[in-house]
Parts: sequence; structure tokens; C-alpha cells
Amino acid sequence: MKREAPRRRQPPESYVEGILKGDRVVLSQAITLVESGLSEDQDLAAQVVEECLPHSGKSLRIGITGVPGVGKSTFIEELGQFVIRKHDRRLAVLAIDPTSSKSRGSILGDKTRMSELARNEHAYIRPSPTGGSLGGVARKTREAIVLCEAAGFDVVIVETVGVGQSETAVHSMVDFFLLLMLAGAGDELQGIKRGIMEMADALAITKADRENVGAARRARAEYSQALGLFPEGAGGWRARVILTSAVERTGIDEVWQCFLEHETLMKSKGVFEARRREQARYWFEAAIGDLLLESFQSNERVRTLRAGLEAQVLDKKRSPFSAARELVRVHLGQEAES
Amino acid sequence: MKREAPRRRQPPESYVEGILKGDRVVLSQAITLVESGLSEDQDLAAQVVEECLPHSGKSLRIGITGVPGVGKSTFIEELGQFVIRKHDRRLAVLAIDPTSSKSRGSILGDKTRMSELARNEHAYIRPSPTGGSLGGVARKTREAIVLCEAAGFDVVIVETVGVGQSETAVHSMVDFFLLLMLAGAGDELQGIKRGIMEMADALAITKADRENVGAARRARAEYSQALGLFPEGAGGWRARVILTSAVERTGIDEVWQCFLEHETLMKSKGVFEARRREQARYWFEAAIGDLLLESFQSNERVRTLRAGLEAQVLDKKRSPFSAARELVRVHLGQEAES
Repeated sequence: MKREAPRRRQPPESYVEGILKGDRVVLSQAITLVESGLSEDQDLAAQVVEECLPHSGKSLRIGITGVPGVGKSTFIEELGQFVIRKHDRRLAVLAIDPTSSKSRGSILGDKTRMSELARNEHAYIRPSPTGGSLGGVARKTREAIVLCEAAGFDVVIVETVGVGQSETAVHSMVDFFLLLMLAGAGDELQGIKRGIMEMADALAITKADRENVGAARRARAEYSQALGLFPEGAGGWRARVILTSAVERTGIDEVWQCFLEHETLMKSKGVFEARRREQARYWFEAAIGDLLLESFQSNERVRTLRAGLEAQVLDKKRSPFSAARELVRVHLGQEAES
Repeated sequence: MKREAPRRRQPPESYVEGILKGDRVVLSQAITLVESGLSEDQDLAAQVVEECLPHSGKSLRIGITGVPGVGKSTFIEELGQFVIRKHDRRLAVLAIDPTSSKSRGSILGDKTRMSELARNEHAYIRPSPTGGSLGGVARKTREAIVLCEAAGFDVVIVETVGVGQSETAVHSMVDFFLLLMLAGAGDELQGIKRGIMEMADALAITKADRENVGAARRARAEYSQALGLFPEGAGGWRARVILTSAVERTGIDEVWQCFLEHETLMKSKGVFEARRREQARYWFEAAIGDLLLESFQSNERVRTLRAGLEAQVLDKKRSPFSAARELVRVHLGQEAES
């Protein structure tokens, strides 16, 4: 061995065995493998994921997003404890956070953010992998879902911060997409990127308590009307707006019933499995694109030429297509030589 | 020559010369080259586009979309004649229609759809190229914009049918995106894909005349409120809703003033050019992705293996990422050998 491995690797079957037993320590080690950039780890992770695949798919996958300050962690903590206590479920919380590698800090970097849930033996909380492209983080999260499901978690929440592209990625890996909103004065959607609201299967207005109740009710009426203008979702689903309060512990039950009602409708219409298959196809194609681009971007000759060509494109000295064609030819040509 | 060329090719400078003179016949021939699948045509087209680039960029680029039946061609015909007559502009109309290769027929397959405009010497109407992927059609349309601008057309309308992915492509090549809507009972947005409304810089309600006036006014109030919930666009622009009627010839002036007001605001905020540079960068990156994928998809070994791997992915026997990695390795491996 050239250098010490960051931890001792196990044969794939010992990870799989631990995961299928529901061992959260082994689950964490396996997710760390999935997140690793080392190619030995990646090969091992691929085998573990592959072995877990037949045991996956049985959870309800929920995406939750909202701007910073909306109260995502408090909401998830309440919801998580509710489904564990009242519905005897096991809950995993994963995060996609494209900002976590930057200075803004990880949305789930600190497990103490959901301290109650983190201590619960029926819950598993995994912070967002730091660094890497959104595509990479999303892929890792998707494989972490498989591992969590194989470990017996039957509700998987994928959390993301509602400020960027990551909502689309999350939307493409969950069965239900919940948007958390804060009732306030004026432009309630400020900060929510265009198009996010149209992806939502439901809106939950948080902090609908005390002096906020009036504003929250007005917001519900407005959003309900706005949502009514959007077309129906698959299976005839209509997004709804729910008032919630973590302090008063209200609305959580209604949100959970909404998930179940949606699941029942989707399954009765045959949309549930069809959508998951579509998602698998989407991730297959996305991975092909990512890997092709990765090989292109790591090509030394492409790297040397790219900035100059891009500058020409921006200055209208080259058309985007002709510049792209030159670069791709360089890429493919170099590979033919090597 | 192995076989007769579909038409006689000219040296690039003769196309460029004709285009710069505003010759619509030469312009059409050059756009045909851009649309051609033959590699000799493509090389020639690339040279012509390159030569025209310095003469491009001076038009106002308008994207117009709406569901079939909303009255797009009637609206464009009215708008086109208005800007030619009243504002002394020259107008080109291009179409992106991902459905045109299928049985549904091209939205602009027949020039007689805009018969008045087609006869006007200050207008140029070009049907959508048939066949090919959306990416390919969009690239060709983008290059056709360059040629039209070099030919002196100072308003370029890119029309698309509001049912699919093509709106995003159009949105990425225009300065202003106009959504045409029909006032009717109930779910007015039926048929408009999710997210389209949030891209619009303005909504024009068509056929707001006679017995429709009441419904159109109610729709305007509802849409205005819904749009108010969306965040401001770049430069602080707020989308607005305009009532129009082609029969009564109302609202067209207001739509045109809205374009100009938007252009002035964007230019005063420095957003206009910044957005065009962003668009150029977007198309550069999109073209790289398209070309990489094209080379991947035309790889014989990839084609042989792909269907089987995809079936395994859909049946949860392989993870999407691991299957993609295998295919991409096959692709890159084959290229290293050849």
C-alpha cells in the first residue's frame, strides 16, 4: 500500500450484511464509501449498492425544500418524531446542499440541528456530502437512498435548501415534493427560484402560530388560488396548502396524511412505479452525460484551449457551436491518439 | 462527385455578400445550409455563420409561445404588420417545433398560415426545420437568428408551440419571452407545461373581444395576481398581462410598447448584454454536451449494449450510475483502440 487508507475497507458482503441488519454504523460507513472520491472506494461502493438494490424501493421518498430561515430542520424534527411515534415508521434524513462546499455552511453539517431526532434509534440523519458538483452530490444521495431503504428505513426524507438547482435534482428522486413557505408581508416567493412552486405536490406554511396566524391564513388563500392556475399533476393530483406550527405541533398530522393520500392515489393510478422507472431512466441518462463531460473536462488539451475559445464566443468572434465543435474534436482526436 | 448535390454550393463569401445585402433568397439558401445534415454543408454553413457574426446582435429577439389554438400565427401576423408599418422595422419569424418531425405537423410548415406577412417585403418567415433532436433544431434556429440579423432584420420572433421542452430553448435565445393565453372557463393553464408561466416576461391574452371580454378581464386579474407571487425578473422587471384581439386589432400596440420598455430597462441596468453573453455561454456548453452525446450515441458498441443495460436499470438489477459507468467506459475504451 502506497499510503494508509482513511479507514479499513471490508469486503462488500460484510457491508451488505450489516446494512440488511439495519446497523446504522455500517450504513454510515457504506455511505462514506459512496461519497468517496477514491476509485477503490468507488468500485467497492458500486458492489455494495448493487447488492442492496433488490432490497430497496420500499420506502416513501419525500423531498423537502424551503429558503433558509423557513424552519426546515424544526419541521423535519417534528414530522420525524411524529411518524416514528404514531405510525411506527423508521425514518432517514439525507441532504443535498450544493452550497455546503462554499462559505455558507452545510444545511445539515451539524447533527445537533435535529438533536431529538438524531438521538432516536428509529431515525438516521446524514449530513450532505461536502464538495463536488451538484450532479455528483445528487448521484451520491440517490445511492444513499438505496442503502437506507435496504437498511429498513421506510420513510426517506431528502432535504435541500430552496435557493438553486438542487430542487430539480431532489424532485427527480422522490415520490412527493414538499415546499415549506413562511407567511410574511409582500413577496412571499422571494428567494424561491422560479419554477420551484410548480414542482411542489404540497406547500406547508411554517410558523403558522401566535401573531402569524392571520398572515398564514391569507397566504394559504393566495397560494391555493395560484396553485389552482397550474395544471393538475400526474394522476390528477392537485397541490394543496397546509398550515403548520412546530411550537403548537399543529398541521404535522395533516402533512403526513397528505403524503399517504398522494401515495394511495399514485399507486391506484399506476403512476407511482411508472414515475420511479422514469426517474431511474433519468438518472441513467444524467450519469452518462456527467461521465462524458467529466472525461472531456479532465482532458489536458481541452483545458488548454477552452478559456480562449470561450472568450471568443462571449465576444462574438466565434459562434458557440463552431467553438464547441472544435473543442470536442480535439477531445475525441486526442483520445484516438493515446 | 459521387452524387449530385441537392443544390449548387457557392463559396462562403457569396452567401455572406447576399445576406449583408438583405437578399432573402440567399438568406434562405444559407439557412438551408445551416439545417443540412451533410458534413460539407455544415462546414460551409459554419464559415458563413462565422462571417456574419460581427454583423449580428442588433435585433430585438422575441420568443412567443402558446398552446395550439391560442392564435399564435394570427397574433404574429398582426404584430408583424404593426411593427413594419408603424415602426419601420424589418421582421423575421423563425420557428422551433419539436413536434414537426412527428405526425402532428409543423406549426409553421405552411407559409400561408401568415399569408399577409409572408407577402410583405420587410418580413421573412422561415418554417421550423423538420426532424432532428430539440438540441439540434434549437442550435440551427440560433444560427438562423445570426443570419437574419446580418441580413438587417431588426426584430426576430422565435415561435414555439407551448407544449414541451422547446420553451426553455427559446427562452435561452431571446431577449423577451411572451406567453399567449386564451381566456376560458376554469383551468386556463391546462396544456401549458409547468414552469413556462414563470419564464414569461409578459402574458398576452388573445381573442379578448366580443363575448370573451368578460372572461379575458377576469383572467387578466387572476394572472396578474399569480404573477405577483413570483419573484421579480432580472433588472427588477415585473411580468404583466395584456389583453389583445386580432379581429379588433387591440392590444398589439401595448405589447410592442411592453417589449420596448423592457428593452430600455434591461439596457439601463446593464442586464441586456450580460444576458446575451450568458446565453452564448449556455449555448457553448449545450453544444459541447450535445456533441459529446452524439459521439457516444453513434458508437456501435454502446448501441449494442445500451438497451440491455437500460432494461436492467429499469428493473432495479443495476444502479443507474453503475450501468452508465460501464457504457461510458466502453465508449472511451473503444475510442482509445481505434
